[in-house]
Amino acid sequence: MLTLTTELLMLRTRHPFIIARGGQSEYRTVMVRVTDADGVEGWGEAAATRFYGETLETVQAALLTYAPLLGDDPHQLDAIERRLELALRRNAAARVAISAALHDLVGKRLGQPTWRLWGLDAAAAPRSTFTIGIDTPEMLRLKVAEAEEYPILKIKLGSDRDLELLQTIRGATDKELRVDANCGWTAVHAVRMLPVLEEFGVTLLEQPVPPDDLDGLALIRRHARMPLVADESCVTAMDIPRLAGVVEGINIKLAKCGS
Amino acid sequence: MLTLTTELLMLRTRHPFIIARGGQSEYRTVMVRVTDADGVEGWGEAAATRFYGETLETVQAALLTYAPLLGDDPHQLDAIERRLELALRRNAAARVAISAALHDLVGKRLGQPTWRLWGLDAAAAPRSTFTIGIDTPEMLRLKVAEAEEYPILKIKLGSDRDLELLQTIRGATDKELRVDANCGWTAVHAVRMLPVLEEFGVTLLEQPVPPDDLDGLALIRRHARMPLVADESCVTAMDIPRLAGVVEGINIKLAKCGS
Repeated sequence: MLTLTTELLMLRTRHPFIIARGGQSEYRTVMVRVTDADGVEGWGEAAATRFYGETLETVQAALLTYAPLLGDDPHQLDAIERRLELALRRNAAARVAISAALHDLVGKRLGQPTWRLWGLDAAAAPRSTFTIGIDTPEMLRLKVAEAEEYPILKIKLGSDRDLELLQTIRGATDKELRVDANCGWTAVHAVRMLPVLEEFGVTLLEQPVPPDDLDGLALIRRHARMPLVADESCVTAMDIPRLAGVVEGINIKLAKCGS
Repeated sequence: MLTLTTELLMLRTRHPFIIARGGQSEYRTVMVRVTDADGVEGWGEAAATRFYGETLETVQAALLTYAPLLGDDPHQLDAIERRLELALRRNAAARVAISAALHDLVGKRLGQPTWRLWGLDAAAAPRSTFTIGIDTPEMLRLKVAEAEEYPILKIKLGSDRDLELLQTIRGATDKELRVDANCGWTAVHAVRMLPVLEEFGVTLLEQPVPPDDLDGLALIRRHARMPLVADESCVTAMDIPRLAGVVEGINIKLAKCGS
Protein backbone atom coordinates (compact mmCIF):
# COMPACT_ATOMS: atom_id res chain seq x y z
CA MET A 1 0.00 0.00 0.00
CA LEU A 2 1.05 3.56 -0.67
CA THR A 3 0.74 5.62 2.51
CA LEU A 4 0.32 9.36 2.66
CA THR A 5 1.62 11.58 5.45
CA THR A 6 1.39 15.34 5.68
CA GLU A 7 3.26 18.08 7.48
CA LEU A 8 2.46 21.78 7.76
CA LEU A 9 5.11 24.11 6.43
CA MET A 10 5.34 27.76 7.43
CA LEU A 11 7.21 29.85 4.91
CA ARG A 12 8.12 33.44 5.62
CA THR A 13 9.19 35.29 2.47
CA ARG A 14 12.03 37.77 2.59
CA HIS A 15 9.64 40.52 1.45
CA PRO A 16 5.83 40.64 1.56
CA PHE A 17 4.59 39.53 -1.88
CA ILE A 18 1.75 41.76 -3.06
CA ILE A 19 -0.31 41.44 -6.26
CA ALA A 20 -3.45 43.21 -7.52
CA ARG A 21 -5.74 41.36 -5.11
CA GLY A 22 -3.61 41.58 -1.97
CA GLY A 23 -0.62 39.84 -0.49
CA GLN A 24 1.20 38.54 2.54
CA SER A 25 4.59 37.51 3.81
CA GLU A 26 3.60 34.26 5.53
CA TYR A 27 2.66 31.20 3.54
CA ARG A 28 1.39 27.99 5.07
CA THR A 29 1.58 25.00 2.73
CA VAL A 30 1.17 21.26 3.19
CA MET A 31 4.12 19.01 2.55
CA VAL A 32 2.94 15.60 1.28
CA ARG A 33 4.94 12.38 1.51
CA VAL A 34 3.86 9.19 -0.25
CA THR A 35 5.71 6.08 0.90
CA ASP A 36 5.65 2.68 -0.80
CA ALA A 37 5.96 -0.82 0.68
CA ASP A 38 9.76 -0.70 0.30
CA GLY A 39 9.97 2.53 2.29
CA VAL A 40 10.82 4.69 -0.75
CA GLU A 41 9.38 8.16 -0.24
CA GLY A 42 8.11 10.69 -2.81
CA TRP A 43 7.57 14.36 -1.97
CA GLY A 44 4.99 16.92 -3.04
CA GLU A 45 3.71 20.26 -1.78
CA ALA A 46 0.19 21.69 -1.76
CA ALA A 47 0.08 25.48 -2.02
CA ALA A 48 -3.53 26.51 -1.41
CA THR A 49 -4.82 29.51 -3.36
CA ARG A 50 -7.96 31.16 -2.01
CA PHE A 51 -8.67 32.51 -5.51
CA TYR A 52 -9.27 28.90 -6.61
CA GLY A 53 -11.30 28.06 -3.51
CA GLU A 54 -8.56 26.40 -1.50
CA THR A 55 -7.24 27.11 2.00
CA LEU A 56 -4.84 25.21 4.20
CA GLU A 57 -7.89 23.59 5.82
CA THR A 58 -9.60 22.50 2.59
CA VAL A 59 -6.29 21.06 1.37
CA GLN A 60 -5.94 19.00 4.56
CA ALA A 61 -9.56 17.82 4.33
CA ALA A 62 -9.16 16.84 0.67
CA LEU A 63 -5.94 14.95 1.41
CA LEU A 64 -7.80 12.93 4.06
CA THR A 65 -10.31 11.93 1.38
CA TYR A 66 -7.61 11.09 -1.13
CA ALA A 67 -5.18 9.20 1.14
CA PRO A 68 -7.01 5.82 1.20
CA LEU A 69 -7.42 5.80 -2.60
CA LEU A 70 -3.78 5.60 -3.65
CA GLY A 71 -3.57 1.84 -4.15
CA ASP A 72 -0.20 0.14 -4.11
CA ASP A 73 1.50 0.96 -7.43
CA PRO A 74 3.00 4.47 -7.85
CA HIS A 75 3.43 3.78 -11.60
CA GLN A 76 -0.36 3.91 -12.04
CA LEU A 77 -0.25 7.70 -12.22
CA ASP A 78 -3.08 8.08 -14.69
CA ALA A 79 -5.45 5.70 -12.91
CA ILE A 80 -4.73 7.21 -9.49
CA GLU A 81 -5.31 10.77 -10.70
CA ARG A 82 -8.63 9.77 -12.27
CA ARG A 83 -9.67 7.98 -9.08
CA LEU A 84 -8.88 11.02 -6.92
CA GLU A 85 -10.71 13.42 -9.24
CA LEU A 86 -13.71 11.12 -9.31
CA ALA A 87 -13.76 10.96 -5.50
CA LEU A 88 -13.51 14.74 -5.06
CA ARG A 89 -13.34 17.28 -7.87
CA ARG A 90 -11.60 20.70 -7.81
CA ASN A 91 -9.02 20.78 -4.98
CA ALA A 92 -6.29 20.96 -7.60
CA ALA A 93 -3.51 21.94 -5.18
CA ALA A 94 -4.23 18.94 -2.96
CA ARG A 95 -4.32 16.53 -5.88
CA VAL A 96 -1.24 17.89 -7.55
CA ALA A 97 0.76 17.48 -4.35
CA ILE A 98 -0.02 13.76 -4.50
CA SER A 99 0.76 13.65 -8.22
CA ALA A 100 4.13 15.32 -7.62
CA ALA A 101 4.91 12.89 -4.82
CA LEU A 102 4.04 9.92 -7.05
CA HIS A 103 6.23 11.22 -9.88
CA ASP A 104 9.04 11.77 -7.39
CA LEU A 105 8.55 8.27 -5.97
CA VAL A 106 8.69 6.62 -9.41
CA GLY A 107 11.82 8.59 -10.24
CA LYS A 108 13.49 7.57 -6.99
CA ARG A 109 12.58 3.91 -7.57
CA LEU A 110 14.10 4.02 -11.05
CA GLY A 111 17.05 6.25 -10.15
CA GLN A 112 16.03 8.95 -12.66
CA PRO A 113 14.74 12.50 -12.27
CA THR A 114 11.21 12.95 -13.60
CA TRP A 115 12.33 15.12 -16.51
CA ARG A 116 14.50 12.27 -17.79
CA LEU A 117 11.66 9.77 -17.41
CA TRP A 118 9.53 12.04 -19.58
CA GLY A 119 12.21 12.32 -22.27
CA LEU A 120 12.81 16.03 -21.62
CA ASP A 121 15.95 18.12 -21.14
CA ALA A 122 15.77 20.37 -18.07
CA ALA A 123 18.68 22.45 -19.37
CA ALA A 124 16.72 23.26 -22.55
CA ALA A 125 13.65 24.60 -20.72
CA PRO A 126 12.61 28.11 -21.80
CA ARG A 127 13.83 30.99 -19.67
CA SER A 128 11.41 31.88 -16.91
CA THR A 129 10.90 35.19 -15.15
CA PHE A 130 11.71 36.46 -11.67
CA THR A 131 8.58 38.08 -10.26
CA ILE A 132 8.57 41.41 -8.46
CA GLY A 133 5.44 42.17 -6.43
CA ILE A 134 3.80 45.54 -5.86
CA ASP A 135 5.83 47.63 -3.40
CA THR A 136 7.22 51.05 -2.51
CA PRO A 137 9.82 52.63 -4.83
CA GLU A 138 12.61 51.96 -2.31
CA MET A 139 11.64 48.31 -1.97
CA LEU A 140 11.22 47.91 -5.74
CA ARG A 141 14.77 49.16 -6.29
CA LEU A 142 16.03 46.80 -3.60
CA LYS A 143 14.18 43.86 -5.21
CA VAL A 144 15.55 44.65 -8.65
CA ALA A 145 19.05 44.65 -7.16
CA GLU A 146 18.40 41.35 -5.37
CA ALA A 147 17.19 39.79 -8.65
CA GLU A 148 20.46 40.57 -10.36
CA GLU A 149 21.11 36.99 -11.49
CA TYR A 150 17.74 36.66 -13.28
CA PRO A 151 17.66 37.96 -16.87
CA ILE A 152 13.89 38.57 -17.18
CA LEU A 153 11.65 40.30 -14.62
CA LYS A 154 7.87 39.94 -14.29
CA ILE A 155 6.26 43.00 -12.72
CA LYS A 156 2.98 42.78 -10.89
CA LEU A 157 0.69 45.68 -11.82
CA GLY A 158 -3.01 46.36 -11.24
CA SER A 159 -2.76 49.04 -8.53
CA ASP A 160 -3.35 52.79 -8.79
CA ARG A 161 0.43 53.28 -8.82
CA ASP A 162 1.17 51.31 -12.00
CA LEU A 163 2.94 54.17 -13.77
CA GLU A 164 5.15 54.87 -10.77
CA LEU A 165 6.05 51.16 -10.52
CA LEU A 166 6.99 50.99 -14.18
CA GLN A 167 9.08 54.15 -13.92
CA THR A 168 10.87 52.95 -10.80
CA ILE A 169 11.72 49.53 -12.21
CA ARG A 170 12.71 50.76 -15.67
CA GLY A 171 14.84 53.38 -13.93
CA ALA A 172 16.67 50.61 -12.08
CA THR A 173 17.27 48.08 -14.88
CA ASP A 174 17.55 47.55 -18.65
CA LYS A 175 16.35 43.93 -18.42
CA GLU A 176 13.46 42.46 -20.37
CA LEU A 177 10.25 43.27 -18.49
CA ARG A 178 6.97 41.37 -18.58
CA VAL A 179 3.78 42.53 -16.86
CA ASP A 180 1.14 40.57 -14.95
CA ALA A 181 -1.92 42.60 -13.93
CA ASN A 182 -3.60 39.63 -12.16
CA CYS A 183 -7.12 40.61 -13.38
CA GLY A 184 -6.62 44.10 -11.93
CA TRP A 185 -7.58 46.17 -15.00
CA THR A 186 -10.66 46.75 -17.12
CA ALA A 187 -10.26 46.08 -20.83
CA VAL A 188 -10.57 49.78 -21.63
CA HIS A 189 -7.91 50.66 -19.08
CA ALA A 190 -5.67 47.90 -20.45
CA VAL A 191 -5.98 49.30 -23.98
CA ARG A 192 -4.99 52.72 -22.63
CA MET A 193 -2.03 51.13 -20.84
CA LEU A 194 -0.70 49.37 -23.97
CA PRO A 195 1.27 52.36 -25.36
CA VAL A 196 2.60 53.04 -21.85
CA LEU A 197 3.80 49.44 -21.53
CA GLU A 198 5.41 49.66 -24.96
CA GLU A 199 7.12 52.89 -23.99
CA PHE A 200 8.69 51.08 -21.03
CA GLY A 201 9.76 48.19 -23.24
CA VAL A 202 7.36 45.63 -21.77
CA THR A 203 7.42 42.50 -23.97
CA LEU A 204 4.42 40.52 -22.71
CA LEU A 205 1.13 41.18 -20.89
CA GLU A 206 -0.42 38.54 -18.64
CA GLN A 207 -4.06 38.40 -17.53
CA PRO A 208 -4.96 42.10 -17.63
CA VAL A 209 -8.70 41.50 -17.00
CA PRO A 210 -10.90 39.19 -14.86
CA PRO A 211 -11.09 35.49 -15.87
CA ASP A 212 -14.45 35.55 -17.68
CA ASP A 213 -13.90 38.79 -19.59
CA LEU A 214 -13.00 37.12 -22.88
CA ASP A 215 -14.55 39.98 -24.85
CA GLY A 216 -12.21 42.27 -22.96
CA LEU A 217 -9.22 40.06 -23.80
CA ALA A 218 -10.26 40.07 -27.46
CA LEU A 219 -10.51 43.87 -27.42
CA ILE A 220 -7.03 44.16 -25.94
CA ARG A 221 -5.77 41.59 -28.46
CA ARG A 222 -6.94 43.81 -31.35
CA HIS A 223 -4.92 46.75 -30.00
CA ALA A 224 -1.85 44.99 -28.59
CA ARG A 225 1.39 44.48 -30.43
CA MET A 226 2.84 42.44 -27.53
CA PRO A 227 1.73 38.85 -26.80
CA LEU A 228 -1.17 38.35 -24.36
CA VAL A 229 -1.05 35.44 -21.91
CA ALA A 230 -3.99 34.02 -19.95
CA ASP A 231 -3.51 32.74 -16.41
CA GLU A 232 -6.64 33.01 -14.27
CA SER A 233 -8.74 32.64 -17.48
CA CYS A 234 -7.22 29.20 -18.12
CA VAL A 235 -7.51 26.76 -15.24
CA THR A 236 -7.82 23.40 -17.03
CA ALA A 237 -7.40 22.14 -20.60
CA MET A 238 -11.17 22.58 -21.04
CA ASP A 239 -10.60 26.36 -21.02
CA ILE A 240 -8.20 26.31 -23.96
CA PRO A 241 -10.66 26.11 -26.92
CA ARG A 242 -12.47 29.33 -25.95
CA LEU A 243 -9.12 31.12 -25.62
CA ALA A 244 -7.83 29.99 -29.04
CA GLY A 245 -7.24 33.06 -31.20
CA VAL A 246 -7.73 35.38 -28.21
CA VAL A 247 -4.38 34.99 -26.44
CA GLU A 248 -0.91 33.95 -27.55
CA GLY A 249 -0.23 31.75 -24.57
CA ILE A 250 -1.44 30.27 -21.31
CA ASN A 251 0.22 30.12 -17.93
CA ILE A 252 0.22 26.53 -16.68
CA LYS A 253 0.56 26.11 -12.92
CA LEU A 254 0.09 22.58 -11.69
CA ALA A 255 -1.44 23.80 -8.39
CA LYS A 256 -4.16 25.46 -10.48
CA CYS A 257 -4.73 22.77 -13.11
CA GLY A 258 -4.72 19.74 -10.80
CA SER A 259 -2.42 17.52 -12.85
CA MET B 1 26.92 6.93 -29.10
CA LEU B 2 23.57 5.49 -30.07
CA THR B 3 23.91 3.39 -33.21
CA LEU B 4 21.10 2.59 -35.61
CA THR B 5 20.84 -0.57 -37.67
CA THR B 6 18.04 -1.57 -40.02
CA GLU B 7 16.69 -4.79 -41.44
CA LEU B 8 14.08 -5.36 -44.13
CA LEU B 9 11.05 -7.33 -43.05
CA MET B 10 8.74 -9.09 -45.50
CA LEU B 11 5.29 -9.73 -44.08
CA ARG B 12 2.75 -11.83 -45.92
CA THR B 13 -0.76 -11.42 -44.51
CA ARG B 14 -3.07 -14.39 -44.24
CA HIS B 15 -5.54 -12.64 -46.57
CA PRO B 16 -4.99 -9.74 -48.98
CA PHE B 17 -6.00 -6.55 -47.13
CA ILE B 18 -8.04 -4.27 -49.41
CA ILE B 19 -9.39 -0.79 -48.61
CA ALA B 20 -11.06 1.88 -50.77
CA ARG B 21 -7.83 2.86 -52.48
CA GLY B 22 -6.42 -0.61 -53.14
CA GLY B 23 -4.61 -3.31 -51.23
CA GLN B 24 -2.05 -6.08 -51.16
CA SER B 25 -0.99 -9.18 -49.29
CA GLU B 26 2.75 -8.47 -49.06
CA TYR B 27 4.10 -5.78 -46.78
CA ARG B 28 7.74 -4.74 -46.65
CA THR B 29 8.66 -2.78 -43.56
CA VAL B 30 11.93 -1.66 -41.98
CA MET B 31 12.90 -2.98 -38.58
CA VAL B 32 14.98 -0.43 -36.68
CA ARG B 33 17.35 -1.23 -33.84
CA VAL B 34 18.97 1.48 -31.70
CA THR B 35 21.86 0.25 -29.54
CA ASP B 36 23.50 2.20 -26.74
CA ALA B 37 27.09 2.13 -25.47
CA ASP B 38 26.22 -0.68 -23.03
CA GLY B 39 24.84 -2.85 -25.84
CA VAL B 40 21.20 -2.44 -24.76
CA GLU B 41 18.98 -2.56 -27.83
CA GLY B 42 15.63 -0.86 -28.51
CA TRP B 43 13.33 -1.92 -31.35
CA GLY B 44 11.05 0.00 -33.69
CA GLU B 45 9.36 -0.61 -37.04
CA ALA B 46 8.76 1.74 -39.96
CA ALA B 47 5.65 0.92 -41.97
CA ALA B 48 5.74 3.13 -45.07
CA THR B 49 2.41 4.41 -46.39
CA ARG B 50 2.39 5.67 -49.96
CA PHE B 51 -0.66 7.80 -49.10
CA TYR B 52 1.59 9.88 -46.83
CA GLY B 53 4.41 9.95 -49.39
CA GLU B 54 6.53 7.16 -47.98
CA THR B 55 7.86 3.99 -49.59
CA LEU B 56 10.32 1.40 -48.36
CA GLU B 57 13.02 3.34 -50.23
CA THR B 58 12.20 6.78 -48.81
CA VAL B 59 12.11 5.26 -45.31
CA GLN B 60 15.59 3.80 -45.81
CA ALA B 61 16.92 7.08 -47.19
CA ALA B 62 15.42 9.07 -44.30
CA LEU B 63 16.88 6.65 -41.76
CA LEU B 64 20.34 7.20 -43.28
CA THR B 65 19.88 10.94 -42.69
CA TYR B 66 18.63 10.45 -39.14
CA ALA B 67 21.14 7.81 -37.97
CA PRO B 68 24.11 10.15 -37.22
CA LEU B 69 21.88 12.57 -35.27
CA LEU B 70 20.86 10.35 -32.37
CA GLY B 71 23.49 11.53 -29.88
CA ASP B 72 24.36 9.34 -26.94
CA ASP B 73 21.47 9.60 -24.45
CA PRO B 74 18.25 7.69 -25.25
CA HIS B 75 16.48 9.61 -22.47
CA GLN B 76 16.67 12.80 -24.57
CA LEU B 77 13.56 11.76 -26.48
CA ASP B 78 12.19 15.25 -26.97
CA ALA B 79 15.49 16.78 -28.11
CA ILE B 80 16.25 13.89 -30.47
CA GLU B 81 12.80 14.03 -32.09
CA ARG B 82 13.13 17.79 -32.65
CA ARG B 83 16.59 17.33 -34.12
CA LEU B 84 15.40 14.68 -36.56
CA GLU B 85 12.39 16.74 -37.65
CA LEU B 86 14.60 19.76 -38.15
CA ALA B 87 17.02 17.72 -40.27
CA LEU B 88 14.26 16.25 -42.47
CA ARG B 89 10.56 16.98 -42.13
CA ARG B 90 7.68 14.62 -43.01
CA ASN B 91 8.92 11.01 -43.16
CA ALA B 92 6.80 10.26 -40.10
CA ALA B 93 7.07 6.47 -40.36
CA ALA B 94 10.87 6.62 -40.41
CA ARG B 95 11.01 9.00 -37.45
CA VAL B 96 8.49 7.12 -35.39
CA ALA B 97 10.46 3.89 -35.80
CA ILE B 98 13.40 5.63 -34.13
CA SER B 99 11.14 7.09 -31.46
CA ALA B 100 9.69 3.65 -30.70
CA ALA B 101 13.19 2.15 -30.50
CA LEU B 102 14.29 4.90 -28.09
CA HIS B 103 11.25 4.39 -25.87
CA ASP B 104 11.92 0.64 -25.92
CA LEU B 105 15.58 1.22 -25.10
CA VAL B 106 14.78 3.48 -22.13
CA GLY B 107 12.27 0.93 -20.85
CA LYS B 108 14.79 -1.88 -21.15
CA ARG B 109 17.46 0.17 -19.36
CA LEU B 110 15.04 0.87 -16.50
CA GLY B 111 13.39 -2.56 -16.48
CA GLN B 112 9.91 -1.13 -17.12
CA PRO B 113 7.55 -1.31 -20.09
CA THR B 114 6.92 2.08 -21.70
CA TRP B 115 3.29 2.21 -20.54
CA ARG B 116 4.44 2.00 -16.92
CA LEU B 117 7.05 4.71 -17.47
CA TRP B 118 4.28 6.96 -18.77
CA GLY B 119 2.03 6.27 -15.76
CA LEU B 120 -0.58 4.41 -17.83
CA ASP B 121 -2.39 1.11 -17.39
CA ALA B 122 -2.28 -1.08 -20.49
CA ALA B 123 -5.14 -3.22 -19.15
CA ALA B 124 -7.39 -0.15 -18.92
CA ALA B 125 -6.90 0.87 -22.58
CA PRO B 126 -10.16 1.32 -24.52
CA ARG B 127 -11.35 -1.60 -26.63
CA SER B 128 -10.03 -1.48 -30.15
CA THR B 129 -11.51 -2.98 -33.31
CA PHE B 130 -10.54 -5.89 -35.52
CA THR B 131 -10.49 -4.65 -39.12
CA ILE B 132 -12.03 -6.56 -42.01
CA GLY B 133 -10.94 -5.41 -45.48
CA ILE B 134 -12.99 -5.36 -48.67
CA ASP B 135 -13.46 -8.89 -50.02
CA THR B 136 -15.84 -11.42 -51.60
CA PRO B 137 -18.88 -12.62 -49.60
CA GLU B 138 -17.26 -16.01 -48.98
CA MET B 139 -14.03 -14.44 -47.74
CA LEU B 140 -15.92 -11.91 -45.59
CA ARG B 141 -17.78 -14.72 -43.84
CA LEU B 142 -14.49 -16.57 -43.32
CA LYS B 143 -12.86 -13.45 -41.88
CA VAL B 144 -15.76 -12.81 -39.51
CA ALA B 145 -15.40 -16.39 -38.28
CA GLU B 146 -11.63 -15.99 -37.85
CA ALA B 147 -12.19 -12.77 -35.84
CA GLU B 148 -14.33 -14.61 -33.31
CA GLU B 149 -12.28 -13.50 -30.29
CA TYR B 150 -12.58 -9.77 -31.11
CA PRO B 151 -15.74 -8.08 -29.81
CA ILE B 152 -15.84 -5.12 -32.23
CA LEU B 153 -15.33 -5.25 -35.99
CA LYS B 154 -14.27 -2.36 -38.24
CA ILE B 155 -15.48 -2.79 -41.81
CA LYS B 156 -13.72 -1.17 -44.72
CA LEU B 157 -16.22 0.35 -47.17
CA GLY B 158 -15.84 2.76 -50.08
CA SER B 159 -16.36 0.35 -52.98
CA ASP B 160 -19.40 -0.09 -55.26
CA ARG B 161 -20.35 -3.16 -53.25
CA ASP B 162 -20.82 -1.47 -49.89
CA LEU B 163 -24.41 -2.64 -49.39
CA GLU B 164 -23.48 -6.25 -50.19
CA LEU B 165 -20.55 -6.07 -47.74
CA LEU B 166 -22.76 -4.73 -44.97
CA GLN B 167 -25.41 -7.38 -45.64
CA THR B 168 -22.87 -10.19 -45.69
CA ILE B 169 -21.14 -9.16 -42.47
CA ARG B 170 -24.33 -8.34 -40.56
CA GLY B 171 -25.67 -11.71 -41.74
CA ALA B 172 -22.66 -13.41 -40.18
CA THR B 173 -22.45 -11.62 -36.80
CA ASP B 174 -24.33 -9.63 -34.15
CA LYS B 175 -21.18 -7.82 -32.99
CA GLU B 176 -20.74 -4.07 -32.79
CA LEU B 177 -19.77 -2.81 -36.25
CA ARG B 178 -17.84 0.34 -37.11
CA VAL B 179 -17.23 1.58 -40.65
CA ASP B 180 -14.14 3.12 -42.27
CA ALA B 181 -14.65 4.42 -45.81
CA ASN B 182 -11.00 5.57 -46.19
CA CYS B 183 -11.98 8.74 -48.13
CA GLY B 184 -13.96 6.59 -50.60
CA TRP B 185 -17.25 8.51 -50.55
CA THR B 186 -18.52 11.93 -51.51
CA ALA B 187 -20.27 13.86 -48.76
CA VAL B 188 -23.63 13.55 -50.54
CA HIS B 189 -23.19 9.79 -50.88
CA ALA B 190 -22.18 9.54 -47.22
CA VAL B 191 -25.34 11.38 -46.17
CA ARG B 192 -27.37 8.91 -48.23
CA MET B 193 -25.51 6.03 -46.61
CA LEU B 194 -26.19 7.19 -43.05
CA PRO B 195 -29.68 5.60 -42.72
CA VAL B 196 -28.32 2.43 -44.31
CA LEU B 197 -25.47 2.28 -41.79
CA GLU B 198 -27.93 2.88 -38.95
CA GLU B 199 -30.16 0.09 -40.29
CA PHE B 200 -27.20 -2.30 -40.04
CA GLY B 201 -26.41 -1.12 -36.51
CA VAL B 202 -23.14 0.64 -37.39
CA THR B 203 -22.02 2.67 -34.35
CA LEU B 204 -19.24 4.88 -35.79
CA LEU B 205 -18.18 6.26 -39.17
CA GLU B 206 -14.53 6.96 -39.95
CA GLN B 207 -13.19 9.23 -42.68
CA PRO B 208 -16.02 9.00 -45.22
CA VAL B 209 -14.61 11.75 -47.49
CA PRO B 210 -11.18 12.93 -48.75
CA PRO B 211 -8.85 14.65 -46.24
CA ASP B 212 -9.48 18.28 -47.22
CA ASP B 213 -13.26 18.02 -47.59
CA LEU B 214 -14.05 19.60 -44.22
CA ASP B 215 -17.25 21.13 -45.61
CA GLY B 216 -18.27 17.61 -46.56
CA LEU B 217 -17.47 16.33 -43.07
CA ALA B 218 -19.52 19.18 -41.58
CA LEU B 219 -22.46 18.32 -43.87
CA ILE B 220 -22.32 14.67 -42.79
CA ARG B 221 -21.99 15.78 -39.17
CA ARG B 222 -25.29 17.69 -39.42
CA HIS B 223 -27.11 14.57 -40.63
CA ALA B 224 -25.34 11.86 -38.62
CA ARG B 225 -26.53 10.45 -35.34
CA MET B 226 -23.41 8.27 -35.01
CA PRO B 227 -19.98 9.72 -34.10
CA LEU B 228 -17.69 10.77 -36.96
CA VAL B 229 -13.95 10.12 -36.69
CA ALA B 230 -11.22 11.73 -38.81
CA ASP B 231 -8.16 9.73 -39.85
CA GLU B 232 -6.61 10.94 -43.11
CA SER B 233 -7.93 14.47 -42.32
CA CYS B 234 -5.85 14.56 -39.13
CA VAL B 235 -2.16 13.87 -39.62
CA THR B 236 -0.54 16.03 -36.91
CA ALA B 237 -1.76 18.00 -33.90
CA MET B 238 -1.82 21.10 -36.15
CA ASP B 239 -4.86 19.62 -37.90
CA ILE B 240 -6.94 19.37 -34.74
CA PRO B 241 -8.19 23.00 -34.40
CA ARG B 242 -9.88 23.02 -37.83
CA LEU B 243 -11.57 19.70 -36.99
CA ALA B 244 -12.93 20.88 -33.63
CA GLY B 245 -16.73 20.78 -33.73
CA VAL B 246 -16.68 18.86 -37.03
CA VAL B 247 -15.80 15.36 -35.84
CA GLU B 248 -16.20 13.53 -32.54
CA GLY B 249 -12.76 11.96 -32.62
CA ILE B 250 -9.47 11.50 -34.42
CA ASN B 251 -7.57 8.35 -35.29
CA ILE B 252 -4.01 8.65 -34.01
CA LYS B 253 -1.46 6.42 -35.74
CA LEU B 254 2.13 7.08 -34.81
CA ALA B 255 3.37 6.11 -38.29
CA LYS B 256 1.20 8.95 -39.65
CA CYS B 257 1.84 11.60 -36.96
CA GLY B 258 5.60 11.14 -36.62
CA SER B 259 5.80 11.11 -32.82
